[in-house]
Amino acid sequence: MITEADVPAADITPADITAARRRIEGRIRRTPLFEAAPELVFKLEYLQHTGSFKARGALNNVLAAQERGDLGPAGVIAASGGNAGLAVAWAAAQIGVPAEIHVPANAPAVKVKRLQALGATVVQTGTEYSHALTASAERAAQTGAFVCHAYDQPEMVAGAGTIALELVEDTTVDTVLVAVGGGGLVGGIAAALADTPVRVVGVEPVAAPSLRTALGRGGPVDVEVGGYAADSLGARRAGRIAYAVAERTGMVSALVEDAAIREARQRLWDEWRIVAEPGAAAAYAGLTAYRPEPGERVAVIVCGANTDPSDLV
Amino acid sequence: MITEADVPAADITPADITAARRRIEGRIRRTPLFEAAPELVFKLEYLQHTGSFKARGALNNVLAAQERGDLGPAGVIAASGGNAGLAVAWAAAQIGVPAEIHVPANAPAVKVKRLQALGATVVQTGTEYSHALTASAERAAQTGAFVCHAYDQPEMVAGAGTIALELVEDTTVDTVLVAVGGGGLVGGIAAALADTPVRVVGVEPVAAPSLRTALGRGGPVDVEVGGYAADSLGARRAGRIAYAVAERTGMVSALVEDAAIREARQRLWDEWRIVAEPGAAAAYAGLTAYRPEPGERVAVIVCGANTDPSDLV
Ligand SMILES: Cc1ncc(COP(=O)(O)O)c(C=O)c1O
Ligand SMILES: Cc1ncc(COP(=O)(O)O)c(C=O)c1O
Repeated sequence: MITEADVPAADITPADITAARRRIEGRIRRTPLFEAAPELVFKLEYLQHTGSFKARGALNNVLAAQERGDLGPAGVIAASGGNAGLAVAWAAAQIGVPAEIHVPANAPAVKVKRLQALGATVVQTGTEYSHALTASAERAAQTGAFVCHAYDQPEMVAGAGTIALELVEDTTVDTVLVAVGGGGLVGGIAAALADTPVRVVGVEPVAAPSLRTALGRGGPVDVEVGGYAADSLGARRAGRIAYAVAERTGMVSALVEDAAIREARQRLWDEWRIVAEPGAAAAYAGLTAYRPEPGERVAVIVCGANTDPSDLV
Repeated sequence: MITEADVPAADITPADITAARRRIEGRIRRTPLFEAAPELVFKLEYLQHTGSFKARGALNNVLAAQERGDLGPAGVIAASGGNAGLAVAWAAAQIGVPAEIHVPANAPAVKVKRLQALGATVVQTGTEYSHALTASAERAAQTGAFVCHAYDQPEMVAGAGTIALELVEDTTVDTVLVAVGGGGLVGGIAAALADTPVRVVGVEPVAAPSLRTALGRGGPVDVEVGGYAADSLGARRAGRIAYAVAERTGMVSALVEDAAIREARQRLWDEWRIVAEPGAAAAYAGLTAYRPEPGERVAVIVCGANTDPSDLV
């Protein structure tokens, strides 16, 4: 198991984010802003390497580990059949170290193939994500591989925070809507914007309210998760870093229904020909829960496109 | 029939393009640039209203007609089941005039529905595009509706040219790759860039070489058209305006195989999660025929996304 002991710090600083940016700049894509409608700006982060924002944190994570001398011959290891796993596999390939990605035995073949195409060794264990997680931790203990967490490692969060640095360089906004799974993305963005007047709204599915629950309970706890966006937003427990950042910055929390996420995904296609995965559409669906004032300028982070678009037409 | 007599001028000036920009600015979307890879920039014009660049020219066309007092109660008319028809329907709705769009009787129901959803009256005649074109011209003669041509009207071409003004404001490039059907898009872009050092490459399918043939023959002639991108690049005859601009600016012509267009479309999805229709993918496929020098900075106009993305995954 990856336990809290694997996570050295429970908050990040602006310096972590500028350090992340220095590390990854030129190796990740600077994604464009798009004035989608009056007072509505999209950050087109789905254009990122591997099709999601996770490439930023993963690359920052492995580069920082390399700087610290934490990368041995076993390279890196992660448990994830989703965007975090893809991103770790990609980041490892970028710096030429091996990646071992643990997924459940019933993971879709297409996901396994994509990981393998990135050069990763894929290990399939058990029938649930938790089995793969346990297997990965056991293997890491044996091999000395560097363990990459999907959302609750400082470098992962700081890497995601670089999105906010680009955003405020490229435009001025009042508010930014960010989808929340374990909270790595929103944690990084809120930490980056902590000293600005920009309001950060963390958007979670009603069906997977890990950060909202943590904020209500005074700390991360396990929650029931499921629903349409569970694939990317279904972390059972908010990250300690995300919780700390949300707490100290007074992050706004918005909950959205699965139906609203579905509609948002369809509308992104119908109106702008953007393919967004449910987790990314959730951020835009946030406008069903968070209602901007007239004249309030809102940015939406469109953070991933790893989805089958067949149902959109 | 829409004949050459319907097309008053056979070239456009920089002033036409700046006038177009003044007319349509704020009503069309300023589409973002994306640094897709080193020395490779994409203009994400598929994010435009109606899913293609045609919205620019269509809006310029109807606004200019309105300025001249050419819009009567019958509004506008066009023959097209594709992007030009959608754009004309959209533009007419923007300024609140009726649009009548003629399509063949066997046009796909989904296309008819989209036109109707934009408020257009759809008229279905015959089994070929030419029948719809004839019917539209006859109707226009009866009703006095303003006829919108898909690519060979000065305002249509000038509207497309506004893409180039945005491009050179936002970045510096050596070369721009542009897909060619009837040549409205490339004509506008080449006319806008005529006084700059930017090289314009018009990319056509081997299976639909209307502009290449016109350049070889000293003027537009009918050619056999077909192939994978025929839907949007299958104009039988290059526009007179496009020919004039290509001739006087020394436009480079590149021909691409259908297989290269298919691969380009797949790669736009695999690498950047961009859904491009074949006509738009053709511009990117141009890199199989036009080989940039080392260090040459190339822009590709990704000009449309009206396609079923089901086959991409
Ligand atoms: C597309 C997408 N959006 C949002 C998230 C949520 O990110 P986080 O877990 O950092 O909150 C994820 C996580 O995998 C994702 O893949
Ligand atoms: C997506 C797309 N690309 C390119 C073209 C070619 O434009 P033109 O006919 O102006 O050359 C079209 C024409 O409809 C189109 O729809």
